[in-house]
Amino acid sequence: MKISERITGMASSPIRKLTPLADKAKSKGIKIYHLNIGQPDIRTPQKALDSLKNIDRTVLEYSPSQGFLSLRKKIAEYYAGYDMDFAPEDITVTTGASEAVLFSFLTCMDPGDELITTEPTYANYLAFADVAGVKVKTLKTRIEDGFALPEVEHFEELITDRTRAILICNPNNPSGTLYGKREMQMLADIVRKHDLYLFSDEVYREFVYDGMEFISAGHFSEISENVVLIDSFSKRYSECGIRVGALITKNKSITSGVLKLCQARLSPPLLGQIVAEASCDENPEYLQNVIAEYDLRRKVLIDALSEIPGVKASVPHGAFYAMAALPVDDSEKFCAWCLTDFQYEGESVMTAPANGFYITPGLGTNQVRMAYVLNADDLRRAVFLLGKALGQYPGRQLR
Amino acid sequence: MKISERITGMASSPIRKLTPLADKAKSKGIKIYHLNIGQPDIRTPQKALDSLKNIDRTVLEYSPSQGFLSLRKKIAEYYAGYDMDFAPEDITVTTGASEAVLFSFLTCMDPGDELITTEPTYANYLAFADVAGVKVKTLKTRIEDGFALPEVEHFEELITDRTRAILICNPNNPSGTLYGKREMQMLADIVRKHDLYLFSDEVYREFVYDGMEFISAGHFSEISENVVLIDSFSKRYSECGIRVGALITKNKSITSGVLKLCQARLSPPLLGQIVAEASCDENPEYLQNVIAEYDLRRKVLIDALSEIPGVKASVPHGAFYAMAALPVDDSEKFCAWCLTDFQYEGESVMTAPANGFYITPGLGTNQVRMAYVLNADDLRRAVFLLGKALGQYPGRQLR
Repeated sequence: MKISERITGMASSPIRKLTPLADKAKSKGIKIYHLNIGQPDIRTPQKALDSLKNIDRTVLEYSPSQGFLSLRKKIAEYYAGYDMDFAPEDITVTTGASEAVLFSFLTCMDPGDELITTEPTYANYLAFADVAGVKVKTLKTRIEDGFALPEVEHFEELITDRTRAILICNPNNPSGTLYGKREMQMLADIVRKHDLYLFSDEVYREFVYDGMEFISAGHFSEISENVVLIDSFSKRYSECGIRVGALITKNKSITSGVLKLCQARLSPPLLGQIVAEASCDENPEYLQNVIAEYDLRRKVLIDALSEIPGVKASVPHGAFYAMAALPVDDSEKFCAWCLTDFQYEGESVMTAPANGFYITPGLGTNQVRMAYVLNADDLRRAVFLLGKALGQYPGRQLR
Repeated sequence: MKISERITGMASSPIRKLTPLADKAKSKGIKIYHLNIGQPDIRTPQKALDSLKNIDRTVLEYSPSQGFLSLRKKIAEYYAGYDMDFAPEDITVTTGASEAVLFSFLTCMDPGDELITTEPTYANYLAFADVAGVKVKTLKTRIEDGFALPEVEHFEELITDRTRAILICNPNNPSGTLYGKREMQMLADIVRKHDLYLFSDEVYREFVYDGMEFISAGHFSEISENVVLIDSFSKRYSECGIRVGALITKNKSITSGVLKLCQARLSPPLLGQIVAEASCDENPEYLQNVIAEYDLRRKVLIDALSEIPGVKASVPHGAFYAMAALPVDDSEKFCAWCLTDFQYEGESVMTAPANGFYITPGLGTNQVRMAYVLNADDLRRAVFLLGKALGQYPGRQLR
């Protein structure tokens, strides 16, 4: 019997290959600083943690397929704070943003349809496109341009009669790039002209720096029927494990299509929804402090990287990732070498080779993605180790 | 822009249409006894509830994509108690059994492949088959035969070169039928002969009555590479809301294929896994009491139904559902009428029209599924109301 090979997605992810190497290094007593993962170390809000102690249910039963109304009301209030007018009926609670991505793909596209996105990209989108039988076409963005969105003509070149949607992640994972008003208006115009869906993954919405303004796809009323917002509590409140996200759209056909899938999987996590709802009641200072902490780390990371000869980092304006070009032959080899052949004072560092975020083979081979989810001291040490490793790496190569 | 219509699944489910009618009846002050849903009223184990109070994590972070090793070890121990030898590596923790069904379909079958199952069936299987692009072929089972599995020749008739798998639910939802040793051996022989996968949804495994023996698809070592067990904590421990299930197979290609999908959706629910693990430590008396309670209710339900003229119930030997043929023209109309035009002393009853469980149009039109998830007193009252309603229903029709 053969196993289906339709799901490629993360299968080729270099991080998956590196993890056993990291485990082996740890088993030898080497301390590894992880810059490779998007798991924040930030404390979950106290109100969220307390909500678990206060559960007085005696049956942990199904919740409604579209999520608790009380939670959807809180999400609507949250959006009102971002000048977006969504009713609870426009909001579907999902099992993480992952499920929101999958369900929007399945609802809005048929097998053989095409989706346009940028690369580098969040690799899991590809797995969900595989599930939906959708072909992903990509526009290259470049580290030299800060991974800015390509101009309109590049989008136009890719659009065919099978194109159904454009997918963006804003602020972007993996690049940390924030799309501005001009770029978002351009997308709105394209989407409107070609009658496409715009899937906008905005799970890092809060994490915007340098006083820049966050513009949501939900701010463009002329495309409100085209836009599907993908959201999550995971990053905002440092509660990735609760698996609570949301799919938000004013397009009632999409909401009712998505509901069919929600009913098939019965309900989103009950306990996660309780935690998510409690998180909404956390003091605003919580998020202000978290944002300030990430901003500090961002500066620490970029400053430290700028001191390593041959390293060119892209300055991120959002999320908690930065891409950097390293003076190496192949960043996947280098990242592996850091785990197998390098240590300094019993320590080493793990970063994510960027080829896992590119779809076109050969792109980004000297780049890595770094998640600044370590505290400032650990971050400094991690980049110090990176510099030491680059100094010793036999495949060092200046471009 | 058109919305994809590939997902049919529950869309046509009559229960979905009846729910607003039930809500309207309730808004008029009518008390509705719900026999239509599989949401147990049984108390979740105290150890499970306590585990939530004892969480001392300060970051609710991602768990491993395949689930916590500690939980997978507990699941392996549980299977050892059923004389099945699975290692933690054979076990993937999923977001409910629903995800296990979807991931096994996506991993083992390609679009255009065929899956054989029986009808009546659990309707959500169809939605997941739609997602996977898989064609479902069904074998009819009849209330007159207690919904027994068809003989081997009926399976053989449906098998083509695109057939990849047989799917069973044992004990069965919606019929409550338990498959015995002879039937399971027949399935094992078919699966082996034609090199098919056997997906066996055994989420009701504990709920077996009349001293009958539960035979798992996992008991047949000669097809261990073909079998995928679908499991869940939801029904066993009355914790449907935690969304923790499992996919269990000795076939390492399936496990590694499923892992790709697990990685794409990052992780199963953290909190649900904590609750599930604690549930495994509950005293055995908990489950013994639950089983005894369901058995009592089963007898109450069947006895009460037998006293209503014209009602023919199938005696279930497993799960917590019973199918009954009613003396009505159309059970969907009757169920709606109970909510819109009937009340007795301010009360009425809601059951699930069986046409939602049949795929072939026209089958089971006078049948309903009843979930005995109410306590014995409420169950007696619900069936009493059903009898009263049948006495007044204008579409009464004896066959």
